[in-house]
Amino acid sequence: MYNKGISKAVINRLPRYHRYLGMLMDKGVVRISSAGLSRQMNVTASQIRQDLNLFGGFGQQGYGYNVAHLYDEIGKILGLDREYHLIVIGAGRLARAVGSYVGFQKRGFNVEAFFDRDPRKHLDDFDDSIKVYPLDSLAGYLKDHKTDIAVIAVPSDAAKQLVPILDKGGVKGIWNFARTDLQVPDHMTVQSVYLSESLMQLSYKINH
Amino acid sequence: MYNKGISKAVINRLPRYHRYLGMLMDKGVVRISSAGLSRQMNVTASQIRQDLNLFGGFGQQGYGYNVAHLYDEIGKILGLDREYHLIVIGAGRLARAVGSYVGFQKRGFNVEAFFDRDPRKHLDDFDDSIKVYPLDSLAGYLKDHKTDIAVIAVPSDAAKQLVPILDKGGVKGIWNFARTDLQVPDHMTVQSVYLSESLMQLSYKINH
Repeated sequence: MYNKGISKAVINRLPRYHRYLGMLMDKGVVRISSAGLSRQMNVTASQIRQDLNLFGGFGQQGYGYNVAHLYDEIGKILGLDREYHLIVIGAGRLARAVGSYVGFQKRGFNVEAFFDRDPRKHLDDFDDSIKVYPLDSLAGYLKDHKTDIAVIAVPSDAAKQLVPILDKGGVKGIWNFARTDLQVPDHMTVQSVYLSESLMQLSYKINH
Repeated sequence: MYNKGISKAVINRLPRYHRYLGMLMDKGVVRISSAGLSRQMNVTASQIRQDLNLFGGFGQQGYGYNVAHLYDEIGKILGLDREYHLIVIGAGRLARAVGSYVGFQKRGFNVEAFFDRDPRKHLDDFDDSIKVYPLDSLAGYLKDHKTDIAVIAVPSDAAKQLVPILDKGGVKGIWNFARTDLQVPDHMTVQSVYLSESLMQLSYKINH
């Protein structure tokens, strides 16, 4: 519904709008002007109006934006008004950290299983309903459990081999933490977090 | 030396060049043309030549790029030819995961201490020389230990309060995992990893 003609840059800004609106709600702010939001976010007011107009505006001349309403609307645009079934592939430090970050802090994103070559790995604070399954049981699991998102936190080579299995199993999106650019078919989507590249950007900035 | 007139977009691409060149070296590839690199990376050959020319080229007409040489040169540009003293603030799941990711996989980035409100937290596989110190000892620690980079993996409010302490303690760069935009003075730099926003971008893409 919303995707036509919306640039990647705008889409990348939406979660940030959502974050700031959430903070304003926490502070009890009921409404805010594009100018007010602009001061908070270091984005120009016209940029904000432009971005939000793409989604039908939500603002009223002279009134500004209703914070809670805008927060909800952007949440809907971002797909935060539904539930997601998640699995985490890998049960190492990073996999467990990301899995529990999502499982305990992100409403609607339900972590339901981990997969690892070594299913004896410990999940720390997850309750017993969430287990580490052997990696070779992944295809079978996906047959029986509708899964929307797979978090990948395994080495690069292993990560690439997972894509066809996830595709066949009906997984729609991959949240990739492996240090590789995963190629996925058009009906799938991948969002990567490259920790190593982020650290290199920091070291570059420190030195220049 | 290199920073004049180099766009953020180029700087963001450099770690990716570095990653691909590293993979080529692992495969034993000695030299590659911009066209060859372009096929690997889904970046146009002219883009690659343009980017690398900013740093004096490194390529030779007809020969292409010497993979190992280019890898080293880009590494130097990224500041990977020196050592960094790191501390991690926070000793929760994500802090430990990021700390051990850096400590065990990133040569030159030396994780030397963790800080947490609860110094009894466990560091899993770090050797005994690396401890969790109480957060209120941070300023004192920085007086005695030259520290280049602080990884921040604590809640947003706590994160903001750390900046002046880190600045006073001579920390040059912050690798921020807190869900907030940290404001730092001009002589400091911050690189943020917003896991939550990345996940929202994924859910957006899944739904459109």
